[in-house]
Amino acid sequence: MPPIVEIRNVSGFVGQEVVVQGWLYNLRESGKLLFPLFRDGTGIIQGVVVKSAVTADVFARVRELTQESSVRVTGKVRADQRALGGFELDVSDVEVLQLIPLDHPYPITPKEHGIEFLMDHRHLWLRSVRQRAILGVRHEIIKACRDFFDERGFTLVDTPIFTPAACEGTTTLFEVNYFEDKAYLTQSGQLYNEAAAAAVGKTYCFGPTFRAEKSKTRRHLTEFWMIEPEVAFAHLDDAMTLAEELIAFVVERVLARRRAELKALERNVAPLESCKLPFPRLSYDDAMKILQEKGSEIQWGGDFGGTDETILSEKFDRPVLVHRYPSQVKAFYMAPDPARPEVALCVDVLAPEGYGEIVGGGERLADYELLVKRIEENQLPRQAFEWYLDLRRYGTVPHAGFGMGIERVVAWICGLEHVRETIPFPRMLYRLTP
Amino acid sequence: MPPIVEIRNVSGFVGQEVVVQGWLYNLRESGKLLFPLFRDGTGIIQGVVVKSAVTADVFARVRELTQESSVRVTGKVRADQRALGGFELDVSDVEVLQLIPLDHPYPITPKEHGIEFLMDHRHLWLRSVRQRAILGVRHEIIKACRDFFDERGFTLVDTPIFTPAACEGTTTLFEVNYFEDKAYLTQSGQLYNEAAAAAVGKTYCFGPTFRAEKSKTRRHLTEFWMIEPEVAFAHLDDAMTLAEELIAFVVERVLARRRAELKALERNVAPLESCKLPFPRLSYDDAMKILQEKGSEIQWGGDFGGTDETILSEKFDRPVLVHRYPSQVKAFYMAPDPARPEVALCVDVLAPEGYGEIVGGGERLADYELLVKRIEENQLPRQAFEWYLDLRRYGTVPHAGFGMGIERVVAWICGLEHVRETIPFPRMLYRLTP
Repeated sequence: MPPIVEIRNVSGFVGQEVVVQGWLYNLRESGKLLFPLFRDGTGIIQGVVVKSAVTADVFARVRELTQESSVRVTGKVRADQRALGGFELDVSDVEVLQLIPLDHPYPITPKEHGIEFLMDHRHLWLRSVRQRAILGVRHEIIKACRDFFDERGFTLVDTPIFTPAACEGTTTLFEVNYFEDKAYLTQSGQLYNEAAAAAVGKTYCFGPTFRAEKSKTRRHLTEFWMIEPEVAFAHLDDAMTLAEELIAFVVERVLARRRAELKALERNVAPLESCKLPFPRLSYDDAMKILQEKGSEIQWGGDFGGTDETILSEKFDRPVLVHRYPSQVKAFYMAPDPARPEVALCVDVLAPEGYGEIVGGGERLADYELLVKRIEENQLPRQAFEWYLDLRRYGTVPHAGFGMGIERVVAWICGLEHVRETIPFPRMLYRLTP
Repeated sequence: MPPIVEIRNVSGFVGQEVVVQGWLYNLRESGKLLFPLFRDGTGIIQGVVVKSAVTADVFARVRELTQESSVRVTGKVRADQRALGGFELDVSDVEVLQLIPLDHPYPITPKEHGIEFLMDHRHLWLRSVRQRAILGVRHEIIKACRDFFDERGFTLVDTPIFTPAACEGTTTLFEVNYFEDKAYLTQSGQLYNEAAAAAVGKTYCFGPTFRAEKSKTRRHLTEFWMIEPEVAFAHLDDAMTLAEELIAFVVERVLARRRAELKALERNVAPLESCKLPFPRLSYDDAMKILQEKGSEIQWGGDFGGTDETILSEKFDRPVLVHRYPSQVKAFYMAPDPARPEVALCVDVLAPEGYGEIVGGGERLADYELLVKRIEENQLPRQAFEWYLDLRRYGTVPHAGFGMGIERVVAWICGLEHVRETIPFPRMLYRLTP
């Protein structure tokens, strides 16, 4: 039997007979010729079936193939510059594994479908060229993030999903029945990362995080993935440099390896290509001036809304780092700026083209007394934070880190309007299936 | 100022003055000499403080250092073959960031502590040589798994954590309040993987999975990480080959890169070094004969207990693949063997040295009618599986895959008695903190 070959590898088999295993993607007929498009998950190749060159039986079998019917195709690989992907398959035989009947066809046709229909059929929708391109870019982004930290000597420390207490407020927490007890699903691995950083120096966690957001927006999922590095003996500036280097590394990697997918998504790559280091850095105060000039009604002390973020990001051709927000809008564990205690040593990174915040982080409060005071001011249950306070009792050091939301980065790099397409099986306020 | 250097990198700075940032690990005094051990998360280095070579102030500061006090140390790197790690630091200055007071010392001392005490102080316990070694091996295992699949053209498809229905029974599911609804935490990404495999050909997911196990054993966590590949057009034999190649790759990678950690764990590496391909393959029937010869009371049709697994694994010097279990002890989605429908085309891999099952998988039922029958026989809610049945309605193909539990692999490779040390912050029946 001829070798079974993945479509992505056919270039190594020109002139040879091979077997391709996959599904019918499309079929075009032109007189005594059939042009079936086959996909196998690794690529798409056009087959050519010449009536006079195959048995009547083979010709008939190909001719009746319906969309997504599963097949094993035998044929000879031919290089053709005009062809999709550069190669065609001169078909000699086809084995049909399953012929989808005409009266019960594959539900997703080339015609337009409503978004709810597509979301209900997410398990099939993933087979489309567009969704596979997004999956490919997502894979590359995640791999790039891990490689970035692994190459720099960070240790992966998976933080727990089940947590006993809230990191930032309880209103957006998912509660779980944990035997006789209650547990909450993690919103961030950061507090645990701080413990790990004191053990291994440089750490990161990368896992799913959860937020019971009641809002139905194009930027929110209830379940999303986040990568969070944390570095002992690091300050705000170190966190900012690490964040911009990570983002530049990820963008460069996707541009280097996933051009085909970006093209399939009709993504204009020019704005990605301009994401070169260094990225602009802007204090909250300076950001405020820009916003007020542009007519925003924001006042000093307020947090940015989506529109504010868009105004700011559109001022620059690459991601912008906004630092030193008022402490009052940031979490209790943020270190105050010694020179100006009313602002925190924190940073948000806003993606270009209006894609909003992709990174949030900064320097953590290392001082025991001040952290106790903040926990009390925020009326957090002191007992639940005793272990976290231990990190300030026993060899406290300056440390900093951040979190980067993967789905926001996928949305930006792929140029997607809604985060629902950035994750294989999105979970939202009204979406728990399939 | 001299360069700040990580201890793992001091070999590049011999004869130079550097700054090391970290914590006091131990202190030994010998007349006019002090020998402080410093750790920074990347390694441990011994400092040498000569009374006559430093100011009285510096000597006094080092002398009063307590375990885990945080410091910035200036000194010159000297190569010394007798030293831990091959280098020492001739200390000239020390800045003390936090001196832990004698009357409130670091709670984990070199003396023996009970396991509950250590688990309650897990956030500090991670700083020990032993726990850092485990974290390092865990990191390498996870990286090796990802590299293995990435290099072979698999696409990472993160499957959802929130699921609407149970994959394998409901008694061990964690229930979540999902707005007005109920959701369950995933026990396996497999069903979703099957959808992804039809989209991308070869896929894997890698994330946390959950099991509400009421049993308190040394092999069970409520939250654990699992890597699950799934391949379209693959059969049982393909899954077996993929599993053994993955395991051999992971072991080889750890042996190549983490010798120091295995040594710190006092792991006998000989049994790991013998894990060469191919691994022995044993049918359930033949396994049964071995067990009965050894006096096990198991009868054909029963699933193996922990003792049975240990008996089998001790017969071989490397992992053993046990295939074709009776269908009745396996999940509803397992394909029956066409030659013997009473057995399933499934495989479990048992680790050597009595570490039990590390992999479970096999070929999936591709036939629509038979899958419907199985869902009915198992009294599963048909409606919840309609999307899963779609995969058999629309272009069904043979496909196979498996899941590998990371914590079990970490336990085996590190030679740990209990899985609680295999994950940074273990979650068990009575353990939800810190």
